[in-house]
Amino acid sequence: MAMYVPPTQRREKSPHLPFGDMRQTPFYGKDILSVSQFGRENLEYVFGVAEEMRSMVEHVGTFDLLKGKILANLFYEPSTRTSSSFMAAMQRLGGSVIPINEVRYSSVAKGESLPDTVRTLESYADVIVIRHPDVGSAAIAALYARKPVINAGDGVGEHPTQALLDLFTIREELGRTENLTVTMLGDLKYGRTVHSLSRLLAQFQTKLHCVSPDILRMPPELVSELKIQGMSIQEHTTLDEVLPDTDVLYVTRVQKERFEDQAVYESVKGAFVVTPDTLKLAKDQMIVMHPLPRVGEIAMDVDTDPRAAYFRQMEYGLYIRMALLAMVLGKA
Amino acid sequence: MAMYVPPTQRREKSPHLPFGDMRQTPFYGKDILSVSQFGRENLEYVFGVAEEMRSMVEHVGTFDLLKGKILANLFYEPSTRTSSSFMAAMQRLGGSVIPINEVRYSSVAKGESLPDTVRTLESYADVIVIRHPDVGSAAIAALYARKPVINAGDGVGEHPTQALLDLFTIREELGRTENLTVTMLGDLKYGRTVHSLSRLLAQFQTKLHCVSPDILRMPPELVSELKIQGMSIQEHTTLDEVLPDTDVLYVTRVQKERFEDQAVYESVKGAFVVTPDTLKLAKDQMIVMHPLPRVGEIAMDVDTDPRAAYFRQMEYGLYIRMALLAMVLGKA
Amino acid sequence: MAMYVPPTQRREKSPHLPFGDMRQTPFYGKDILSVSQFGRENLEYVFGVAEEMRSMVEHVGTFDLLKGKILANLFYEPSTRTSSSFMAAMQRLGGSVIPINEVRYSSVAKGESLPDTVRTLESYADVIVIRHPDVGSAAIAALYARKPVINAGDGVGEHPTQALLDLFTIREELGRTENLTVTMLGDLKYGRTVHSLSRLLAQFQTKLHCVSPDILRMPPELVSELKIQGMSIQEHTTLDEVLPDTDVLYVTRVQKERFEDQAVYESVKGAFVVTPDTLKLAKDQMIVMHPLPRVGEIAMDVDTDPRAAYFRQMEYGLYIRMALLAMVLGKA
Repeated sequence: MAMYVPPTQRREKSPHLPFGDMRQTPFYGKDILSVSQFGRENLEYVFGVAEEMRSMVEHVGTFDLLKGKILANLFYEPSTRTSSSFMAAMQRLGGSVIPINEVRYSSVAKGESLPDTVRTLESYADVIVIRHPDVGSAAIAALYARKPVINAGDGVGEHPTQALLDLFTIREELGRTENLTVTMLGDLKYGRTVHSLSRLLAQFQTKLHCVSPDILRMPPELVSELKIQGMSIQEHTTLDEVLPDTDVLYVTRVQKERFEDQAVYESVKGAFVVTPDTLKLAKDQMIVMHPLPRVGEIAMDVDTDPRAAYFRQMEYGLYIRMALLAMVLGKA
Repeated sequence: MAMYVPPTQRREKSPHLPFGDMRQTPFYGKDILSVSQFGRENLEYVFGVAEEMRSMVEHVGTFDLLKGKILANLFYEPSTRTSSSFMAAMQRLGGSVIPINEVRYSSVAKGESLPDTVRTLESYADVIVIRHPDVGSAAIAALYARKPVINAGDGVGEHPTQALLDLFTIREELGRTENLTVTMLGDLKYGRTVHSLSRLLAQFQTKLHCVSPDILRMPPELVSELKIQGMSIQEHTTLDEVLPDTDVLYVTRVQKERFEDQAVYESVKGAFVVTPDTLKLAKDQMIVMHPLPRVGEIAMDVDTDPRAAYFRQMEYGLYIRMALLAMVLGKA
Repeated sequence: MAMYVPPTQRREKSPHLPFGDMRQTPFYGKDILSVSQFGRENLEYVFGVAEEMRSMVEHVGTFDLLKGKILANLFYEPSTRTSSSFMAAMQRLGGSVIPINEVRYSSVAKGESLPDTVRTLESYADVIVIRHPDVGSAAIAALYARKPVINAGDGVGEHPTQALLDLFTIREELGRTENLTVTMLGDLKYGRTVHSLSRLLAQFQTKLHCVSPDILRMPPELVSELKIQGMSIQEHTTLDEVLPDTDVLYVTRVQKERFEDQAVYESVKGAFVVTPDTLKLAKDQMIVMHPLPRVGEIAMDVDTDPRAAYFRQMEYGLYIRMALLAMVLGKA
């Protein structure tokens, strides 16, 4: 969809609803579009708020910080996990949600442009979360919206809340984000998740191991970018050699469809499945992460291992999304 | 769907939930089915309430007038804009919503009649909003329901909340509804929106210009009906001659599919697109409206013109729907 | 979908959100999976709570017993009636809902297992309602979830909340559940509803008449099971002989598709349609029930007969579901 951008200045974000206790916080009225917005100081801010959210949820479940605020949850492609997470985040803050999931059948199907859809929704809501298959669409939505826009994934582009929750998981589970050895396993070529997380980790003296089939290696330009930032990166084809040193094993799915030659797929797939046996080589104090959904990359009998952090990861996602919603609405 | 109407009197609408502060207001327990329910006195009443709603939203965003009330938002055909608007209206009044959007896959697909669906939903909810492709379906729903029913569009029939929000937009933007020159542009034959709005305007000494391709002229029987009511109506094929006098330019979409001969479409379509150039002929104190979605009828670089009222129109829709919900539930 | 069940003990259900006024009630933290969980004592408990819910809804409409609690309403197949009922139940208790209706397009379509979906949702929500086409799926969900799971129908398996609301309807309408003559009419072979209700009724000295076409008779093994429990059961092919003694006429749909020979269907279908004439044979103090949706089994002109209880049945369903939600969350 070609979208026209008018030659006007972007309008200053200013919610037209006055808040009684509006605080001029760093993210008030801002959009959350990319991990590149998050240097170390901002990350500390987000994580501090997310920890407060965690504490509140653990103690009271739900509270009324965003009572009376409305989130338009605009999903141009289905993602039960992410949409449910934002919905729960808004509800746990006492706000309400307009879910818009059936976009394919609606106004948009009648040819409405993304800017028009966004400007309509901001007539009703206080903040917009958008998931869209096209790269850059969240930025276009933000350009036209007066209300804050949060990118919930724009195609092969960014999915900043996923990267933030990944880093927050590491911080909460291991107590720090500095000087860790992180091993990424699986499809490192197409995985938007691992790309964004790598960029965040580059700020924290991370030692990164990349373990993937040859055809699914981390893109060379990303490897260069990360090295320029001073990150230590090594590429491998098997997990065993790096697992003993690993603090964080980040597993992603190797999709059959990525392989032209199915024989190649069959020959490599076993090397990228994590089982209880695999983890015998790992430290006691380490975690296994996965962005989910998984389809066999981690055996289900790993789930009861205390190092399996992937379901807790979902909970950290809730806290991060609560934090971001509160922040852009001037409440944190 | 043939629907059986039993030979009984229509049951008196009487919500079975006692309200603490129930007020015997004119619309309490009523259905909103047609613009024909709205004479000048009723219109003033609705607009007065809608202005209160606007003021409350601008000052506090959301408030608890309908706390504890539940809206069943029953959409037999998708309309993100209208369903989101009603959902936001209910949420800004502190109520909650049961969205029923997937009707095509559900009980109805199992052959359930509209009356049965409505009687089921009113077991759960306090008010029902219905959008349905068949003319008269909202009236049938209302006939069977004990709870108030609001018509959110029944095919080529009525869409009364759209007409009310259109007139409210004019009133809020221009300060009055009397003695205005209104120009309707585009498809005036099939546009349910312009038909309903014309009927409302006929009560206000409006001078109406109809500008359309020849095959999409306002239906002669409607023109007669309006003239009988004393409305001044003139039909035109180009906008330029009437734009300088126009207070309200109401633009609708000219759909390619309406033309058998695509050459005719190509030859006329340019005359029904509004651009910044078009508006050079217009007054400073006038507004451009559109029911949205638009698909090219108004160029996007018109959006920054202060006379472009079509996004504000969405906001006025929110206030009108808040007003109607509060009214039929006895709270305004 | 083959689902792996790990060889670990089922984790003790223990909501991680502390409730201020948590009461150690019999269903606190429990799953609701089957009618077999409900002996007479439990039934009395559920119905007592449901009566309180009815009283509260009739007096105040909505109240904040579950304020701050979140329900994940997970529907793998559409059921507007049941999903709306649970949604309304949660909203009338002041809680909020994450509706997940589009499962076919989402993570699950990407191959995610039911246990993973459930464990993700419980990161966000406090209770999970699940509807799934496969027998046993609710039990599997419950096995993996730490939060309470309520079965809203698992294929030809169970639909316990339907059976509970059916029995509650009888109790509320007739003032007792003991020593009643219940006649079940229609498809008694495939109807999950009548099977579950029969099992509940077996506890109450019910006299059961089964009226069905020959090919749709109650399964012999169920008849035996009920007789062993001391139930009096008689099978018939016409309604007239048993209607005069009937306290509860429970009608179900006879689906054309069940008959190989359409001539047989045509010859019998008339015998299973209830009209005002049919009811001339019935007592004044009796009720007609139907799980809905109906498609012709009960003529619409029966609806105004005071004995027609099938729409009130929907309301009783709301109270039962409110009761169950409050109970499993430790509030009743």
